[in-house]
Amino acid sequence: MLNLSTPTPARWLAQVEKNLDLLLIDHAHCEKKAAGVAMNLLFSYVEHAELTRSMTEIVQEELDHFHQVRELLDRRQIRFYKLSPSAYGSKLHELVNKHEPQRAVDRLLVAGLIEARSCERFGLLRDHLPDRELADFYGSLFESEARHHSTYVRLAKDFLDEEAVHQRLRELAEAEGAIIAAGEDRPRMHS
Amino acid sequence: MLNLSTPTPARWLAQVEKNLDLLLIDHAHCEKKAAGVAMNLLFSYVEHAELTRSMTEIVQEELDHFHQVRELLDRRQIRFYKLSPSAYGSKLHELVNKHEPQRAVDRLLVAGLIEARSCERFGLLRDHLPDRELADFYGSLFESEARHHSTYVRLAKDFLDEEAVHQRLRELAEAEGAIIAAGEDRPRMHS
Repeated sequence: MLNLSTPTPARWLAQVEKNLDLLLIDHAHCEKKAAGVAMNLLFSYVEHAELTRSMTEIVQEELDHFHQVRELLDRRQIRFYKLSPSAYGSKLHELVNKHEPQRAVDRLLVAGLIEARSCERFGLLRDHLPDRELADFYGSLFESEARHHSTYVRLAKDFLDEEAVHQRLRELAEAEGAIIAAGEDRPRMHS
Repeated sequence: MLNLSTPTPARWLAQVEKNLDLLLIDHAHCEKKAAGVAMNLLFSYVEHAELTRSMTEIVQEELDHFHQVRELLDRRQIRFYKLSPSAYGSKLHELVNKHEPQRAVDRLLVAGLIEARSCERFGLLRDHLPDRELADFYGSLFESEARHHSTYVRLAKDFLDEEAVHQRLRELAEAEGAIIAAGEDRPRMHS
């Protein structure tokens, strides 16, 4: 359902469990960035009524999640600050075609794959974190990320035919899987 | 209350009344841009909890207004398309200081002045348009623009002391008034 080519390796959970404060701070920034990505897509394809409706919903939900993570940080007295992101997002955006309509498809599918990876990892955190409040929190976010993934893939089909979209989704999912398999030293939601 | 230095000249209403379709299309883009401005401020000052809360509300309200204008266009069978903006916004942004914390103050006050001007003009449209649906629509948007103006001015006082903020607001309002007095040939919400 999530179209991921590669499951998260076991080392990621071990990495972030030792750095839960950093994970939470990075998670807040990820929600903010997800809202920003949806807003940018709304700006770029503003004439597309259905896309602007869907992006508006995603902006609102991601900003709501951002504030939920901020409140969790406050309750735990963890200071929220600007944190360098993992290279995951920028590596994915390098794959985006420069020419329309492929560009629209790539931007939507990359956004969709990021939602899919977040969804998969929220599921891992829900199932494996011994901290019940955190496990429940990630469980509560799981469904919306899966839904956003489906929305992005569906919208891509308004720009290219279904078979071309699925072919490109497989290519981008392979590339995403390679980035995830390589991993990253900094503990982050997408390291 | 709106801190404007100069009322809208009578020629503006005459200009846009002859071009209501263009005014409405431009208005939709203005709501989208207002959402984008608030999102950019949230990104820039993400550690400021109250600012991010206020910007989230503004993003949501402006996107809601964007869709309201889109629906109005649809009901009137006016095609919505990408339209060159007036130079108003870019001229105002040229006035923004490059250095913090003055930059934050300037960005907030410029955003607040744009809301104030929109509010004043929505009031003019409410009071003078013979088209009752449009007049009522602009009346319904009036209050939120006034509220956004107050929010931006209040937040600016978290970055510089109150007297410095009011001094800068007077300077920027003078500059904004000069741009409005000069006007622009293209009929737009801020021409």
